[in-house]
Amino acid sequence: MFEQLGLIGCGLMGGSLALALKQAGLVRRVVGYSKSPSTTERARELGVIDVAAPSALLAAAGADLVLLAVPVAATEATLKSIKHLVTRDMLVMDVGSTKNDVVQAARTALGSQIGSFVPAHPVTGREVAGVEFADAQLYRGCQVVLTPTERTLGAQLRKAEQLWQALGCKVRQMSPETHDQAFAAVSHLPHLLAFAFMQSICGQAEGDTFLALAGPGFRDFTRIAAGEPKMWRDILLANREHVLEQSQHFQQALHTFEQAMRTGDAQALEDMLTLASGARAHWRMGADRTLGTTTPLL
Amino acid sequence: MFEQLGLIGCGLMGGSLALALKQAGLVRRVVGYSKSPSTTERARELGVIDVAAPSALLAAAGADLVLLAVPVAATEATLKSIKHLVTRDMLVMDVGSTKNDVVQAARTALGSQIGSFVPAHPVTGREVAGVEFADAQLYRGCQVVLTPTERTLGAQLRKAEQLWQALGCKVRQMSPETHDQAFAAVSHLPHLLAFAFMQSICGQAEGDTFLALAGPGFRDFTRIAAGEPKMWRDILLANREHVLEQSQHFQQALHTFEQAMRTGDAQALEDMLTLASGARAHWRMGADRTLGTTTPLL
Repeated sequence: MFEQLGLIGCGLMGGSLALALKQAGLVRRVVGYSKSPSTTERARELGVIDVAAPSALLAAAGADLVLLAVPVAATEATLKSIKHLVTRDMLVMDVGSTKNDVVQAARTALGSQIGSFVPAHPVTGREVAGVEFADAQLYRGCQVVLTPTERTLGAQLRKAEQLWQALGCKVRQMSPETHDQAFAAVSHLPHLLAFAFMQSICGQAEGDTFLALAGPGFRDFTRIAAGEPKMWRDILLANREHVLEQSQHFQQALHTFEQAMRTGDAQALEDMLTLASGARAHWRMGADRTLGTTTPLL
Repeated sequence: MFEQLGLIGCGLMGGSLALALKQAGLVRRVVGYSKSPSTTERARELGVIDVAAPSALLAAAGADLVLLAVPVAATEATLKSIKHLVTRDMLVMDVGSTKNDVVQAARTALGSQIGSFVPAHPVTGREVAGVEFADAQLYRGCQVVLTPTERTLGAQLRKAEQLWQALGCKVRQMSPETHDQAFAAVSHLPHLLAFAFMQSICGQAEGDTFLALAGPGFRDFTRIAAGEPKMWRDILLANREHVLEQSQHFQQALHTFEQAMRTGDAQALEDMLTLASGARAHWRMGADRTLGTTTPLL
């Protein structure tokens, strides 16, 4: 149980977490700050935060839990602005989708205070942004990856684990490097492909005609292409080495498919489709085949 | 109202349409045939068809409506096998996802009887196959594209339109060429990309670890990669020229994104993301911006 949550960034992710923590009785009071005063004010009106703070520093003042829910590129500046309030008893977390850059930013910004910071990535989200969409259920049942550094305090790491578990999340730990490589593969690259696909349709003269005919397959495949441009700009730049590497793997696979189509090699094509289709049909969200368990999370 | 539906192919698409037509009171009796006798028998047990026929010819015998719901590559052989029963009063339709090859197959197979054949593509489907998943609601509200030839009889075309409209579908007409180009863009290419993406993940040593971490974005982006391998083999081969052309457009867009990432051009990246995200956010299934209307179908 935390006495006071200092929420820095009252958008979809931050707002939803504030609501979830309050609903679960894990925080008593939420002091919130967003870069845009109108967002902070709106968060207060919606009951997402209890008190509006005029700065990140004032949101963190008096808090025993500080949550950064800002674009990953803003992590360093935000942590710097609250640094001299960070104590060993405080738990500071982020919710960013990349972790190498966040850990690096935390090292630079927090220096010797870095032990209180537990880098976190809850694997959830929506294709809409803004506090209006804040939803206490957003985190329910999702996976949360923690990427502690060698200097993270054990007590803060345990508090972080307990917090997410109390929200019904499945918590994993891994290195920032492993995290960024895996999420380049299963999240950042799919987003890049969906964005590029939308651009390629819109760039054609017949684009509107095509779009008018699109059905449910298109709808689901492109849902993530509606993601927030600034957020995805930051993620794609922060994790670009892994994403570009995954994109190379993907393009090789695509070329193999194209080659089978060009040469009319029906058997090769069917074999590849069978492998891909089988893999997808057997996949279940949150089921970890690498650990030999199949516990669906949702 | 039709007296007897001859259903050739009792899988998901055919079985669902038989159920929908009976439920809507549009056909009195369904005689069904599938290549696999156990499928035909299962369809009868499930009440999807009333009578099991031992051949396509016997399924068509006595029918005033014949529906082909077979893999597109089987269209020519199937039509040949029923050709001498096809009359001017009979409506023959398919439900295939490609239309140039289906029209060509119909020309070859039906010859002078081609007037009774109305090529149809209902834009719906699921990532599962088999009569067990047959669902009378599968076609509700979907778009149906008809691609009549210059020899299609006006009376049969009107019957086809009325049939689909009576099921709550929105009917459009276009040339097979326009159809195949548009669906290469908004359906066949996304499937190809989703299949290739799954293959690229599974081909990596860390593939299982990656998959265990995947979340809701991955789930939706790859849903169509679970599609039936044989069906998609046929579609990708039948429409390969358009699909390969669309794949080139896509790869150009992807390279533009990659270039912005490599050079760290945040502004260019954000501009492209903004365009893609805005286009997807404004898209509504079944809303035709080219006609200035925005009637959502689902």
